Amino acid sequence: MNGQTLSIRRIGIDTWRENVAYLHRDCPVVRAAGFQALSKVAVQANGATILAVLNVVDDDRIVQACELGLSEDAFARLGIAEGHPAQIDHAEPPDSIAALHRKIDGERLSRQDLLAIMRDVAAARYTKVELAAFVVATHQNELDRDEVLHLTEAMIAVGERIDWRHERGGGPVVDKHCIGGIPGNRTSMIVVPIVTAHGMCCPKTSSRAITSPAGTADTMEVLADVELPLARLKQIVRDTGGCLAWGGTAALSPADDILISVERPLAIDSPGQMVASILSKKVAAGSTHLVLDIPVGPSAKVRSLPEAQRLKRLFEYVAARLGLQLDAVITDGRQPIGRGIGPVLEARDVMQVLAGDPRAPQDLRQKALRLAGRVIEFDPDVRGGDGWRIARDILESGRALAQMNRIIDAQGRRAQAVAPGALTLEVPAPAGGTVVGIDNLRLARIARLTGAPQVPGAGVLLHHALGDAVRQGEPLYTLHAQHAADLEFARRMAGADSGFEIGAAERLPRDIVPGAAGLA
Amino acid sequence: MNGQTLSIRRIGIDTWRENVAYLHRDCPVVRAAGFQALSKVAVQANGATILAVLNVVDDDRIVQACELGLSEDAFARLGIAEGHPAQIDHAEPPDSIAALHRKIDGERLSRQDLLAIMRDVAAARYTKVELAAFVVATHQNELDRDEVLHLTEAMIAVGERIDWRHERGGGPVVDKHCIGGIPGNRTSMIVVPIVTAHGMCCPKTSSRAITSPAGTADTMEVLADVELPLARLKQIVRDTGGCLAWGGTAALSPADDILISVERPLAIDSPGQMVASILSKKVAAGSTHLVLDIPVGPSAKVRSLPEAQRLKRLFEYVAARLGLQLDAVITDGRQPIGRGIGPVLEARDVMQVLAGDPRAPQDLRQKALRLAGRVIEFDPDVRGGDGWRIARDILESGRALAQMNRIIDAQGRRAQAVAPGALTLEVPAPAGGTVVGIDNLRLARIARLTGAPQVPGAGVLLHHALGDAVRQGEPLYTLHAQHAADLEFARRMAGADSGFEIGAAERLPRDIVPGAAGLA
Repeated sequence: MNGQTLSIRRIGIDTWRENVAYLHRDCPVVRAAGFQALSKVAVQANGATILAVLNVVDDDRIVQACELGLSEDAFARLGIAEGHPAQIDHAEPPDSIAALHRKIDGERLSRQDLLAIMRDVAAARYTKVELAAFVVATHQNELDRDEVLHLTEAMIAVGERIDWRHERGGGPVVDKHCIGGIPGNRTSMIVVPIVTAHGMCCPKTSSRAITSPAGTADTMEVLADVELPLARLKQIVRDTGGCLAWGGTAALSPADDILISVERPLAIDSPGQMVASILSKKVAAGSTHLVLDIPVGPSAKVRSLPEAQRLKRLFEYVAARLGLQLDAVITDGRQPIGRGIGPVLEARDVMQVLAGDPRAPQDLRQKALRLAGRVIEFDPDVRGGDGWRIARDILESGRALAQMNRIIDAQGRRAQAVAPGALTLEVPAPAGGTVVGIDNLRLARIARLTGAPQVPGAGVLLHHALGDAVRQGEPLYTLHAQHAADLEFARRMAGADSGFEIGAAERLPRDIVPGAAGLA
Repeated sequence: MNGQTLSIRRIGIDTWRENVAYLHRDCPVVRAAGFQALSKVAVQANGATILAVLNVVDDDRIVQACELGLSEDAFARLGIAEGHPAQIDHAEPPDSIAALHRKIDGERLSRQDLLAIMRDVAAARYTKVELAAFVVATHQNELDRDEVLHLTEAMIAVGERIDWRHERGGGPVVDKHCIGGIPGNRTSMIVVPIVTAHGMCCPKTSSRAITSPAGTADTMEVLADVELPLARLKQIVRDTGGCLAWGGTAALSPADDILISVERPLAIDSPGQMVASILSKKVAAGSTHLVLDIPVGPSAKVRSLPEAQRLKRLFEYVAARLGLQLDAVITDGRQPIGRGIGPVLEARDVMQVLAGDPRAPQDLRQKALRLAGRVIEFDPDVRGGDGWRIARDILESGRALAQMNRIIDAQGRRAQAVAPGALTLEVPAPAGGTVVGIDNLRLARIARLTGAPQVPGAGVLLHHALGDAVRQGEPLYTLHAQHAADLEFARRMAGADSGFEIGAAERLPRDIVPGAAGLA
């Protein structure tokens, strides 16, 4: 308010996508300006301004009365050295807050409104509370398809974009993505070798697990380095046609990255936010063609076929207007894919499929071939319907395995193979009958309790799938862990509810995706 | 997850109604359990459990790898000494989160749902993000009147209640409250002396300003101590029949207090939340009879008469079911009340009215008499319609002033009178004409910039009201400040827009409250 000068101090606290300023309670500006904890303040130094939430400090060792403490996020964003003078003032609400309030009051937002909001979100001018208000307001007062389009465009506009023009040789830049929620669904690690062996450019970047027992980046990391600087990534793509790397944080769709920091703890995943999040990241990552996997099942993210079709149409509408070629595939999401859940166990499934090992899980193989076939059909020289056969030939000839090994070597092969967790425990069927239900969420949770993904060898190894007949006491799955305490936690959770439902064969749910069990 | 033991450390950071736990990045439990910044964790020590949001720390001076740092809020709530062993684990979402999600999805909440949510809110089991979700969800998906009733009951149930049975002598415990938004509206400081002089019990507790230039507690503090322990307050009420004290924080309606910490920064004030907030605090404070002031005007909280009537009916519905006698009065909120805005200037207005000073602002006098008359009519021995005359007699006889002096002396009279800020500046009319509009929000903001309420003598002294004829250059109001920089900030804001609209007399807006200008 009256702009007293303070000295910047970096505070080693990670406040995760929220700028926090720490001021001592005896700081004259706190008293004069009537700041209180959680006031929103503007910090100015050397021409730069950031907004931050205030925490009032009573401990001289953290900040002194003449100092302005900044959390790691705030310090990095202001980008000014410690000890530099700074001024602090009441923050005017960011301009876009008026648009946020109109959305809360039920109005439709314009392209300009959404751009202004995403610009302020990306610049960390929203507090967590304001972000939560945006997420809830756009969930309750569902965004129409043009609002979703404009949100997606805004997310792209406020971030960086990767350009693969020099690496792709003029052809399409293809990608394959799943909306998530199905444990063990590691098709990308099979699709990328196949389609790049076919000669396509597929620079696949993936996430790490946040709430699941493994992300593609975690599983690939069992085999190779995945944290690669962009220049190195581009060289690998130039050499091999593809990669399987960690997508890194923030830069590609920074507004989405910040929104996720409140969507996740709120467990809100509305269709508009999902479409904007996925498509903004794909376009920013330079993809021109995308095969999208939408699994449907009672414990999947999408629970019914009509819901999946609505979501598919929304993806298609937005993608078309962004100039992104999209092939959205609704798949069977009634149960996990493959046998393993957890990085090492999933990597083993993937390598068995690539190696043509007779023990390879056939559901993972079939699904990967189906998706790879759809990607291959983006090739203008491939006739519609031929993709699956081409993909299968590449896999069976060993060319996909050879290509995977090239990618692993290019990224940096892990010197030592990581083994599955040595502590094991079998979870038995409580009764004989047919497996009529498998709860994806429950199995993901049990797998996380074993230690996955932090302990790569931890996880769940499934012995049965839907429709299997089991005898009482026969193992349904094996828990793998590294620490006895983790194994005990997972055992208890599996004991309370194994996630498997055993019943009469007639109760087996029909696949709600017609033809999804087929090959194309 | 695997329950490693850490040593509790109190961290002198005020995180304002949110529990924050600080763990070092190298703490084994952070790595093993896969905690990351903003994870919600459960802290257990000595049989007590709290939920907290995690901040990851990279500085040994704040916490070490074997320590569990707790923010002031979290430390106080856990109530366990420093150095005590504690365990930390992933937090299960509080049970009521399922109900929150149902509200987000548009469902109606039951009495049990709202009780469960308020219980978790009061116990600080909700993060700021979850609180924001509740506030936005119940604003967008407006609560019906039974939901508002159940929310109010829940807020009362989870807090403490004051019982005035020993102080009131069996009669009603009366109160008077305004929904806020009108600068200078200090009627309580006139109503309380009048109605207690009439022999009623009126233990008035008020708030301090948060976003306004003065709360009743700030203004009363110019004259007397307002921070009084409950036992002392009860003695004062026993001796004088009333008090004008600061309501303190939290204990009376702790859930509301926590919700306000996100409603305020979001500037969301929906009818249901307002009714629950006000009525829960009144019932918890032991009031049995309440006169409620609902000002209406273009820059008041309520903008139209139909809106005011809807709000009035909602207050009446809930109050009736709580057994609270309510008389809700819709008043003229087109402009500030009295001449002063800011603690000292408002206290002067109040004392002039009580002293029968001919310079006393007549609008403040009339409004206070009207409200006091309504309170007096709660007295079963007073005939309907006689209240205003009784109140006027008490005021004109000097009994109200004598009673105010008793209350001031009982609370502890300020040794030295505080003078209005010595730095002054007049804001002139930019043109001649009639005052046809005065913006409450703008004047409140200008008054805050002068330094009110932190600087009690700072504020705005109005020279004109709606309908006054003014000449060009004639002062509309005077700014009072203590610091030159504050005066300059306020001058600039007043220069950009004084908050006064000068125009042709025909444009003067009619009072939208029929009869509100009248006496009863």
